[in-house]
Amino acid sequence: MSHHRLFQKMVYLSLVVLLLSGCAVPLLARTIQSEEQIKQDPVKIVYQSIGIFHTELTPQTGSPRQGILQTEIKGTIEVYPEYQEALRDLEKYEYIIVIYHMHLSKGWHTPVRPPSSSHTFGLFATRSPNRPNSIGFSVIKLKKVEGNILHVRGIDAFNRTPVLDIKPLLPSIDCPGGKINLDVEKEIGLKQKK
Amino acid sequence: MSHHRLFQKMVYLSLVVLLLSGCAVPLLARTIQSEEQIKQDPVKIVYQSIGIFHTELTPQTGSPRQGILQTEIKGTIEVYPEYQEALRDLEKYEYIIVIYHMHLSKGWHTPVRPPSSSHTFGLFATRSPNRPNSIGFSVIKLKKVEGNILHVRGIDAFNRTPVLDIKPLLPSIDCPGGKINLDVEKEIGLKQKK
Repeated sequence: MSHHRLFQKMVYLSLVVLLLSGCAVPLLARTIQSEEQIKQDPVKIVYQSIGIFHTELTPQTGSPRQGILQTEIKGTIEVYPEYQEALRDLEKYEYIIVIYHMHLSKGWHTPVRPPSSSHTFGLFATRSPNRPNSIGFSVIKLKKVEGNILHVRGIDAFNRTPVLDIKPLLPSIDCPGGKINLDVEKEIGLKQKK
Repeated sequence: MSHHRLFQKMVYLSLVVLLLSGCAVPLLARTIQSEEQIKQDPVKIVYQSIGIFHTELTPQTGSPRQGILQTEIKGTIEVYPEYQEALRDLEKYEYIIVIYHMHLSKGWHTPVRPPSSSHTFGLFATRSPNRPNSIGFSVIKLKKVEGNILHVRGIDAFNRTPVLDIKPLLPSIDCPGGKINLDVEKEIGLKQKK
């Protein structure tokens, strides 16, 4: 066997190894993707933030428990430019629902003792930020929309909290009942509206 | 050069190629992971469903627009067993907030014309399911909790909708204002409460 043919064999073998390793990359990528796509229980769901809160609240300042009742707390929601057109007509609403990712929450446990409450509650019976999915929900007063910037009041989200969705508050479907729940609201330590 | 040494060289070269290609896999995995971890604008957020809706609503039956006003629509939320303990005390509330993933929604566009409305609105000024993040929000009447099963009324989610979070409805912070927004509710075609 000449050196030339041995060199050829070497090149072929290297090519085969390269091809095989090349297959590993797309195969791995497909595995990771399908893990998210298979509709099994439980399912993984991937969202992408549509904007970001700009507020003066940080872990150092703390976050007010009842943002909506503290209307002096001002801030903005910066909606990314690709969604600006979808903000049309939002100003017709006095209050909006903001759904956001409580990015500083870590882990969850149950039960929890809400602030100002004398006893513990199961986690889902509270609004604790430390939940299996750290999804924040707030009803916020909308003061003004300027381009892609929402000027809001009564915030309880930390600065740079990623925003996932904005919806109008529709009292006729979102606020059934009226004076419901008031006893348990006292139990979990909420101050009552006057 | 003997055949033996050429063969050795061939083996070494193949080993080098194998090692290099072996590095590609963890490197790729790290790239995919860090894409979700880097706190940039916008950020990707991964959730895992905590339960699932069991209802009689399908794309064929359609979904009522104002589930809460149609209390004859019954169903259950199956919360996965690992979260059952976190449901303690939930029964103290008459209404709960359910946040879910509208798994049958596809894409989004703006503006949209809400059903029964004569004109279009920017997407975020509506409750259309076709949103950048297909996050559903409903206030639902809680009838009973049996183990990890919530019996609910006034549902507008399709069967097998993945549930992301359950929170108590707290009217003192979630329902500010009172008879606010009623004009725009008429505009978007909502029937008013009597």
